Amino acid sequence: MAGLDPTDWNGIREIGHRMLDEVFDRMEHVGDGPVWRPMPSAARQSLKEGLPEKGHSLDDLYGRYQELVVPYGVGNTHPGFMGWVHGAGTPVGMLAEMLAGGLNANCGGRDHAPIEVEREVIRWALQMVGMPQDGSGCLVTGSSMANFISVITASRAQDLAIRKNGIGGRGLVGYAATTAHGCLPRAFDLAGLGSEALRRVPVLADHRMDIGALRDMIAADRKAGLEPFMVAGTAGTVDCGAIDDLVAIEAVAHEAGLWFHVDAAFGALACLSPRFKDQLSGIEKADSLAFDFHKWAQVPYDAGCVLVRDSHKHAAAFAQSLDYLVREERGLAAGAPWFCDFGPDLSRGFRALKVWMTLGHYGSERMGDMVETCCDVAADLARRVERTEGLVLLAPVTLNIVCFGLDGLEDAEVSELVQDLHESGIAAPSTTRINGRLAVRAAIVNHRTTTTHTNRMLDAVIALRDARLKARTGR
Amino acid sequence: MAGLDPTDWNGIREIGHRMLDEVFDRMEHVGDGPVWRPMPSAARQSLKEGLPEKGHSLDDLYGRYQELVVPYGVGNTHPGFMGWVHGAGTPVGMLAEMLAGGLNANCGGRDHAPIEVEREVIRWALQMVGMPQDGSGCLVTGSSMANFISVITASRAQDLAIRKNGIGGRGLVGYAATTAHGCLPRAFDLAGLGSEALRRVPVLADHRMDIGALRDMIAADRKAGLEPFMVAGTAGTVDCGAIDDLVAIEAVAHEAGLWFHVDAAFGALACLSPRFKDQLSGIEKADSLAFDFHKWAQVPYDAGCVLVRDSHKHAAAFAQSLDYLVREERGLAAGAPWFCDFGPDLSRGFRALKVWMTLGHYGSERMGDMVETCCDVAADLARRVERTEGLVLLAPVTLNIVCFGLDGLEDAEVSELVQDLHESGIAAPSTTRINGRLAVRAAIVNHRTTTTHTNRMLDAVIALRDARLKARTGR
Ligand SMILES: Cc1ncc(COP(=O)(O)O)c(C=O)c1O
Ligand SMILES: Cc1ncc(COP(=O)(O)O)c(C=O)c1O
Repeated sequence: MAGLDPTDWNGIREIGHRMLDEVFDRMEHVGDGPVWRPMPSAARQSLKEGLPEKGHSLDDLYGRYQELVVPYGVGNTHPGFMGWVHGAGTPVGMLAEMLAGGLNANCGGRDHAPIEVEREVIRWALQMVGMPQDGSGCLVTGSSMANFISVITASRAQDLAIRKNGIGGRGLVGYAATTAHGCLPRAFDLAGLGSEALRRVPVLADHRMDIGALRDMIAADRKAGLEPFMVAGTAGTVDCGAIDDLVAIEAVAHEAGLWFHVDAAFGALACLSPRFKDQLSGIEKADSLAFDFHKWAQVPYDAGCVLVRDSHKHAAAFAQSLDYLVREERGLAAGAPWFCDFGPDLSRGFRALKVWMTLGHYGSERMGDMVETCCDVAADLARRVERTEGLVLLAPVTLNIVCFGLDGLEDAEVSELVQDLHESGIAAPSTTRINGRLAVRAAIVNHRTTTTHTNRMLDAVIALRDARLKARTGR
Repeated sequence: MAGLDPTDWNGIREIGHRMLDEVFDRMEHVGDGPVWRPMPSAARQSLKEGLPEKGHSLDDLYGRYQELVVPYGVGNTHPGFMGWVHGAGTPVGMLAEMLAGGLNANCGGRDHAPIEVEREVIRWALQMVGMPQDGSGCLVTGSSMANFISVITASRAQDLAIRKNGIGGRGLVGYAATTAHGCLPRAFDLAGLGSEALRRVPVLADHRMDIGALRDMIAADRKAGLEPFMVAGTAGTVDCGAIDDLVAIEAVAHEAGLWFHVDAAFGALACLSPRFKDQLSGIEKADSLAFDFHKWAQVPYDAGCVLVRDSHKHAAAFAQSLDYLVREERGLAAGAPWFCDFGPDLSRGFRALKVWMTLGHYGSERMGDMVETCCDVAADLARRVERTEGLVLLAPVTLNIVCFGLDGLEDAEVSELVQDLHESGIAAPSTTRINGRLAVRAAIVNHRTTTTHTNRMLDAVIALRDARLKARTGR
């Protein structure tokens, strides 16, 4: 038998159950131990063995995994992780990945139940943000890809002939605030429009897009013979969580006949919170929307989502007909449109299951509560920052991100201090630049993070700062 | 506690182990029952419940999964599935997904062990195809994305200013055989070059690219003022598994100063077979290469891979600097280059683990044996086709794909016959068009498929054909 199934099913079952138990053990005690620890170079070296000819027993491989990989993870499951906009995952999501791995469905197309699960999940997403149920969408790797798909869809809606003939010499331009995520100019780059074809609109003091400036820039570009085609608002900026005025942006965009896109990578989840949803008002008018389930929705990586208001425009931008993919009336090859008609991928994994099980188990209310709790933890942290001598809040805390400066330290020292903090294992914030100044940035995206953890982080920051200031005085 | 961890860990453990047992049960008996069955509309309806406010108990949700999803999968794990180029998965891959779901690493960047695992897997892939170890690469959703990344890298290697300024009016053109996969023109479309900028080179009677025609087309385009920049060879065409003469294509491409890309979506795995690897000769000279682990390598969906010979050109095409992603010397934010510098995704799942565990457990020799066995099964089927009255082999069987016609039936009848076969649950081949004629296509990509299954498929095809011919005579 050259097949790859085991001859000894009992053996693999036994090790499988042991693995599962150990995954649960780790999850149950995820807050113990350091957030992160550097991977020793010996462990790094051990992973370099070259493609094995003979293969390891599963036992040995798993031993290597436990020894070389598990202790040196990224740390985002740990409640002390508040560095980047990372979800923490849940045991339910883990089990869904196990089930999906067993089913091994290819969700690019064809007629089968995993496709129906993805369709349901897309309806949930439309419902969550208030877009009409006849919109389309698909699950993708992440918001970077979802934003790219949106740019492609918007540009093809402007002129479908681009698909065949390319961009050519056309001056297609789009707009997003200076605070928009870097994946938006990158989407313009990848689409062949050029990253500079995404005009960056200045923000006001509240970190939200300057609507007057947007209007002026569109007019000026039109006058210069360029062809404005889309405006992207951000609901939850990556640096400080600001939410653009989506109602105003929508009005300007649609008045000018432009596509209205929203990047709500993590912010979309705030639609489930009665307390915050009004701040996202206007999101329901989006022509396209990008967000992630792997961020605030705590679905395991990776799981992004793109939604498009007009499913015909969406399919027109991506569908392709291939001989061997003829859509039949019945049989396994029926059931068009397929998800491969809505994005760049043909083969696609069963990402939908982990989303279906996570939202299906926790429900929208509890997800909304979780989002509010993260914001409460952030608000508490912000208050402590404001009360603490020598710490300055560098941006208003709209949702769940707190950026603060350390008076008396140079940017390079702040950066080193954060590295020290990472290496201490106590907490993992990150840094970002706010109005030119390096900030310590705590993004509370992890459902496990409580004020205990933010306090521990802040105590450590203060202690490290004091030590640095003292050492300097001592010199 | 608003966190999403269970209060009753014992309860979730119990259900987790039950799920795992049932996944194993199904895998152990995967060949029993139909390959595929149509999803009843009642089940489809049941999945439409809207986003639940309160959420279901995990028990209920899992019950719904078992009832509504599992019986109506795509069928690719079943040995009777031979329709599309789908891998079948393995229990080892399933366990890896479970472990990865528990670790929940984001492999876009930062300094942690899952990144090192992906680096190792990329080295394995380079080794497998014979590319130098200092090449770069990353795991992606599939070959569609890997081909897109290659087109982006090749065009940026031609002129890096495209990233900022866009394609503009430049006449960048590429070349691939008429038999190349549809995702290649789609990659040109998405990149803003236009699908017609991928020139389609005719094939000879052996279904391989006509090298003389390639040379002429490049010369003619240059003369016409266009800017040829890449040539793509295919190692294993999707319709019949032909392998372009990669040595000859490489020579033409590099002589003309063009980027040499290879789409080896499933064919790359044949590099592990002593019997077939010579046919892929030239692949080791690729400037970029796209292939899938989720196809012939039997890694669960999705798992594609792109490799690039010159890592600097690869990073130059994708790397971006963002304030909040500063790469540090040490701490969690160290360890550049990151995988987000090699593709469009920022957040990225831990796809590498299932590849590492699958290849690490089975080893390259056994994977090579498995590939050869698939080809043996295909060769056996081809012989039976040739021996059978009224069946005609429509293309040579280079590797693992058999395409045959049914004399006396119209194309529409062949298509209906295959739909009948799907609905019978006996076997699932697909159809494709070979030289204008509709063919039944059996792609033996499943490690579980043996001659028993291909015989059963062929017997059913013959019986269905006979019934159709008889019904017609009866009229
Ligand atoms: C506002 C915003 N947009 C887009 C992205 C990119 O999302 P992803 O990492 O899922 O590609 C992020 C990531 O943090 C983000 O915060
Ligand atoms: C030769 C070839 N290239 C590309 C692809 C697309 O690969 P994926 O479905 O992984 O995107 C396929 C899929 O069958 C293929 O056979």
